[in-house]
Amino acid sequence: MLPNNDIVTNVYTGKDGVFEGLQSGSILLDSSTVDPSVPTALEKIANSKGSFFLDTPVSGGVIAAQSGELTFMVGGDKQIFEKAQGVLSGMGKKLVHCGGIGMGQAAKICNNMLLGISMAGVAEAMNLGIRLGLDGKQLMDIINNSTGRCWSSEIYNPVPGLMPNVPSARDYEGGFYSGLIAKDLGLAQGLATRTGSPIPMGALASQIYRLMCKAGLEVRDFSSVYKFIQDGQKI
Amino acid sequence: MLPNNDIVTNVYTGKDGVFEGLQSGSILLDSSTVDPSVPTALEKIANSKGSFFLDTPVSGGVIAAQSGELTFMVGGDKQIFEKAQGVLSGMGKKLVHCGGIGMGQAAKICNNMLLGISMAGVAEAMNLGIRLGLDGKQLMDIINNSTGRCWSSEIYNPVPGLMPNVPSARDYEGGFYSGLIAKDLGLAQGLATRTGSPIPMGALASQIYRLMCKAGLEVRDFSSVYKFIQDGQKI
Amino acid sequence: MLPNNDIVTNVYTGKDGVFEGLQSGSILLDSSTVDPSVPTALEKIANSKGSFFLDTPVSGGVIAAQSGELTFMVGGDKQIFEKAQGVLSGMGKKLVHCGGIGMGQAAKICNNMLLGISMAGVAEAMNLGIRLGLDGKQLMDIINNSTGRCWSSEIYNPVPGLMPNVPSARDYEGGFYSGLIAKDLGLAQGLATRTGSPIPMGALASQIYRLMCKAGLEVRDFSSVYKFIQDGQKI
Amino acid sequence: MLPNNDIVTNVYTGKDGVFEGLQSGSILLDSSTVDPSVPTALEKIANSKGSFFLDTPVSGGVIAAQSGELTFMVGGDKQIFEKAQGVLSGMGKKLVHCGGIGMGQAAKICNNMLLGISMAGVAEAMNLGIRLGLDGKQLMDIINNSTGRCWSSEIYNPVPGLMPNVPSARDYEGGFYSGLIAKDLGLAQGLATRTGSPIPMGALASQIYRLMCKAGLEVRDFSSVYKFIQDGQKI
Repeated sequence: MLPNNDIVTNVYTGKDGVFEGLQSGSILLDSSTVDPSVPTALEKIANSKGSFFLDTPVSGGVIAAQSGELTFMVGGDKQIFEKAQGVLSGMGKKLVHCGGIGMGQAAKICNNMLLGISMAGVAEAMNLGIRLGLDGKQLMDIINNSTGRCWSSEIYNPVPGLMPNVPSARDYEGGFYSGLIAKDLGLAQGLATRTGSPIPMGALASQIYRLMCKAGLEVRDFSSVYKFIQDGQKI
Repeated sequence: MLPNNDIVTNVYTGKDGVFEGLQSGSILLDSSTVDPSVPTALEKIANSKGSFFLDTPVSGGVIAAQSGELTFMVGGDKQIFEKAQGVLSGMGKKLVHCGGIGMGQAAKICNNMLLGISMAGVAEAMNLGIRLGLDGKQLMDIINNSTGRCWSSEIYNPVPGLMPNVPSARDYEGGFYSGLIAKDLGLAQGLATRTGSPIPMGALASQIYRLMCKAGLEVRDFSSVYKFIQDGQKI
Repeated sequence: MLPNNDIVTNVYTGKDGVFEGLQSGSILLDSSTVDPSVPTALEKIANSKGSFFLDTPVSGGVIAAQSGELTFMVGGDKQIFEKAQGVLSGMGKKLVHCGGIGMGQAAKICNNMLLGISMAGVAEAMNLGIRLGLDGKQLMDIINNSTGRCWSSEIYNPVPGLMPNVPSARDYEGGFYSGLIAKDLGLAQGLATRTGSPIPMGALASQIYRLMCKAGLEVRDFSSVYKFIQDGQKI
Repeated sequence: MLPNNDIVTNVYTGKDGVFEGLQSGSILLDSSTVDPSVPTALEKIANSKGSFFLDTPVSGGVIAAQSGELTFMVGGDKQIFEKAQGVLSGMGKKLVHCGGIGMGQAAKICNNMLLGISMAGVAEAMNLGIRLGLDGKQLMDIINNSTGRCWSSEIYNPVPGLMPNVPSARDYEGGFYSGLIAKDLGLAQGLATRTGSPIPMGALASQIYRLMCKAGLEVRDFSSVYKFIQDGQKI
């Protein structure tokens, strides 16, 4: 799981990279989140060496990884996917074959775009409610029993003091960095532009996390969007 | 449950309205979604006539109303709330006292702002994924098992053909009209401006539903945002 | 020229306010930027006292005020407007009768919404270009000779070092505060919601300036949006 | 002047393309608006054949082209630029050397992003004002004498009936298509993502023009954004 297109490509194709000395018949599994064109290119090289490549990005975050409950979204040859299931199920409780090479990335990027939108939405709704005089815990409880409920509200609430063991409980240390979701939303932008798909909310969320990176929150958990809209301040 | 500030106010204070001939000691429960200033004003009048007023907006939509599983968000005097619980529980499975008069509205408006954001986000993510070649049903399944999951994706998916008995299964007839969520988001804007609370995602969602009203989707379910971003066309 | 609805209303109707002891036949000219409902209410009171009221907001900023080159946008009775021209022309080079009472505000708020949009747009375009390696002065020159040219680029460029005697030349001290354009954009939101007018760009600009207020730029010139998108940092 | 990256590349490098049989010592001038990486790659090939390449995108639209008053933004070797000035000045009144190869594109894309923002802003402000009861011609006049003034308002106003000889006067036929500015804004997104530059207004404008393409306005002038926000309807 590496952070961007160039680094992933280089790990395989660079000097002393994975492709050097690769044993024929190997199955390469890469769980980075990158543009679908990256695994597409790497699969071609792997095939030319008698090996195989699957893109296997995940969802669930650090918490699900620790408990072996990740969702793997897999792109590539279906038979190879079936062979890889044993390994993947060691960390994942749900393995989904999403289609040909790169389609795991497509699914991951769509999910993360929605995640970025939801988290910003939860932050705005919670902040507005609290400023109007509502109790944060109660508002969270109402939302979680209503039509606004979502993973960002139920499992990973961005408001400090409402939940234990989430980044908002520790000043947004650790977790899934703003800089990383900004990168994923940048990938979504690229795919949306290529396919002419309107993503107004996704585009704005992308800009919000990018602004957060400028405001000193790049290596804080992305739920620090709550902090950002409250006061824009650097941590 | 009436559609806007003026209509609600008029039903109580207008000629032959509720306040004319109101018996002393009555408890008035109003489940409309309106600006918190409306119940605040009506409570004053009710009190001056020896009666009581609670704002009791709901979440859950037509489906939850039919099954008696609404969430009631209640603002007003706590003792009066306790007296009203018997009546409210006939239609609701969760009754929450949110604070003084108007605070039920505050909670409802925050929830609905998040709902409007989430639904637009689901529509964008599903449309992008399908255009990239993913199977809609599979993408929905992935999202519902990942960090993007939310009520709009799990219970009320906007993509036609994925779920039975939701508005997207019947060309967005019935349900919760775009015009109504546009109104709720307009209320959210007003409260955010009054309190100086940033709501970038909420503000954009507000504009998207308003544009949908202009595009002929005002009296279609708000999940028709999927149709809107696909082709902007009038139904 | 006072900063908001409540303060303006209070100056006229409050204790020891303008309306106390107002001489019959007076013409009241108010150049604050407020919701059109404020002058509408004040005109009624003025008329009831045998006097007159015009809303006369201005455009041009501190620079135009100092040189007597403001634009006055006037709402109210046309005959009264004609009587007031002598006074107004002392500070304004252009006096426009925009219609009945409140219509000066309508025009002002529309202009300022566009101003807020343009300034943010100039800041983004200049910042992007400079990051791509363009020379700031040259990019400004190109824009000012092309289709992107606007007042914010030609007269009031937000990039430090390109122009003398503008707020960007003095670390955004003075000028037209971010907090004030945020207020004007809030008024625009209210009017747009009331009339169901889509203003996606205006709504987003409103949120950007509101975020800037949270980030410590409330009492800096609104062209500090350039600073905000660069690094979000507090001054 | 060709419409996208692939077409431009193909015209030079494809079968029977420009590079086949190119005379050594030629200077190639390309006025398409494309990603800066395109002229960068083409310059390399040209140099390898003993020739030269400049990217020379323009601003001004059909009107300026007809009158020979275009602005040319030129990227590439400065000495080659000087040799090309004679040819370029036949169509342009302003020739600007913006830097190395691709920098003409950078300048053009920044300008056009601002243009797309301004035009949407003018459309919103004019529509809001007219709905509030202002006279369109008068509002345009006020804006053009105030801080909201910009090329989109002064030269190319999007409201039908206010100006002769502009696309809004002929139901948005001809001019600069929504589909083309959507493409330019897509290029801006790509550059902003690559450099981590926040462009919230540019990102939203990009989505608005993309939505317009879906709504049937792709081959109408981009000032039809006025029509789009009014009623979202297909022409």
